[in-house]
Amino acid sequence: MTRKGRFITVEGTEGVGKSTNLAFVSELVRSWGQTIVQTREPGGTPLAEQIRELLLENRSEIVSHKAELLMVFAARAQHLEQMIVPSLERGDWVLSDRFTDATYAYQGGGRGLDCKLIEQLENCVQDELRPDLTIILDIEPEVGLARAAARAELDRFEHEDIAFFNRVRSAYRARVEAAPERYLLVNAGQPLQQVQADIARGLESVKTRWDTQG
Amino acid sequence: MTRKGRFITVEGTEGVGKSTNLAFVSELVRSWGQTIVQTREPGGTPLAEQIRELLLENRSEIVSHKAELLMVFAARAQHLEQMIVPSLERGDWVLSDRFTDATYAYQGGGRGLDCKLIEQLENCVQDELRPDLTIILDIEPEVGLARAAARAELDRFEHEDIAFFNRVRSAYRARVEAAPERYLLVNAGQPLQQVQADIARGLESVKTRWDTQG
Ligand SMILES: Nc1ncnc2c1ncn2[C@@H]1O[C@H](COP(=O)(O)OP(=O)(O)O)[C@@H](O)[C@H]1O
Ligand SMILES: Nc1ncnc2c1ncn2[C@@H]1O[C@H](COP(=O)(O)OP(=O)(O)O)[C@@H](O)[C@H]1O
Ligand SMILES: [Mg+2]
Ligand SMILES: [Mg+2]
Repeated sequence: MTRKGRFITVEGTEGVGKSTNLAFVSELVRSWGQTIVQTREPGGTPLAEQIRELLLENRSEIVSHKAELLMVFAARAQHLEQMIVPSLERGDWVLSDRFTDATYAYQGGGRGLDCKLIEQLENCVQDELRPDLTIILDIEPEVGLARAAARAELDRFEHEDIAFFNRVRSAYRARVEAAPERYLLVNAGQPLQQVQADIARGLESVKTRWDTQG
Repeated sequence: MTRKGRFITVEGTEGVGKSTNLAFVSELVRSWGQTIVQTREPGGTPLAEQIRELLLENRSEIVSHKAELLMVFAARAQHLEQMIVPSLERGDWVLSDRFTDATYAYQGGGRGLDCKLIEQLENCVQDELRPDLTIILDIEPEVGLARAAARAELDRFEHEDIAFFNRVRSAYRARVEAAPERYLLVNAGQPLQQVQADIARGLESVKTRWDTQG
């Protein structure tokens, strides 16, 4: 694949402000003269959105951790092939509300699945493709969950306990530590204006790096 | 896992007579004094049946081959964990209308996906578990498709062309050749009574082998 556009993802636990800040990032990138495609995971195509529904639906049946992981990557394979890759090849920038870091965090950290397995699936489904930049919004899970609870009915993940989300948060932070150049870690516990000032400053500096790399 | 029951699967292209002969096999096994659980793939649990619907639904969106493969194994992981493994551990026999041989045949042979990838997923999802016996009903795809067409509206797979089903059939036959002791290959072009006589003879002889193995 010949990539021309940039691929940016936004991550974090429930209610951290991903959806809120997605529009802000889009506007900023548009102000640089780029066309931006906004999407989300799981989802992003009709089939992938149907898989999302199956994943988020509250159900009495116990869901196998491996089944959950494979559904996530099935949706991702579809999303990549039908949407993300063609957009990047066209030269558009792609901005996604969650991507594979969420799999390491939720299915790896949260569920305790082996990271080796996640890595194998990542290589199988994505080949060489990785986000150019991932913005991780970081907050105490309690604060985010309180925001999310005020928003809508809780989905299957949002029903997990606080220990689960602490593991998710730690997994996100461990990924930043392992490859800091690919991440922008933002304190999402600040007032929204300050969160967005941090995002803007971080993005501008990454853009400068990309521009000079050519 | 401590397995006590036996795991038998029935395979073949569309309209070959899998569903028709499943009841026959069940009756035979019951006549040996065993409890038998009848199931199917993709499917077998509420979530796995929902994934089945997504897989079979006719849709305008092109379905990524890898997404299809991962959905199949997601449903299988759920089916194994919630249904097949607990049944076998209880000492029940499990009889499934399709299983992983269908993945090698349809996603491997039909779609052309790499068998190494299928094997990796098989090991990941099933660990050591393989069917004790697989009955492959074999017929010219044209004949089976004509039977299937008379039966109901065609699903997403049944809309494939004859070349696709010839590849599926060849893949099934190649699996029998590679491990003949695990398969019972039956000519499904014969009158039903003859098909069932062949199945009964084959099963009785396998049972004798299992009985003497203890
Ligand atoms: N920095 C912030 N401070 C206070 N509330 C916020 C902040 N960022 C987002 N919110 C609010 O928190 C709720 C969850 O935000 P949302 O963007 O939907 O989170 P996510 O998509 O990460 O689950 C929304 O009601 C949003 O307005
Ligand atoms: N040996 C046979 N000869 C003729 N028709 C058959 C035979 N076996 C099954 N059929 C018929 O073919 C159709 C498809 O059978 P079915 O068991 O539904 O196939 P499958 O489940 O493999 O798709 C049914 O109408 C069935 O009655
Ligand atoms: Mg959101
Ligand atoms: Mg059938």
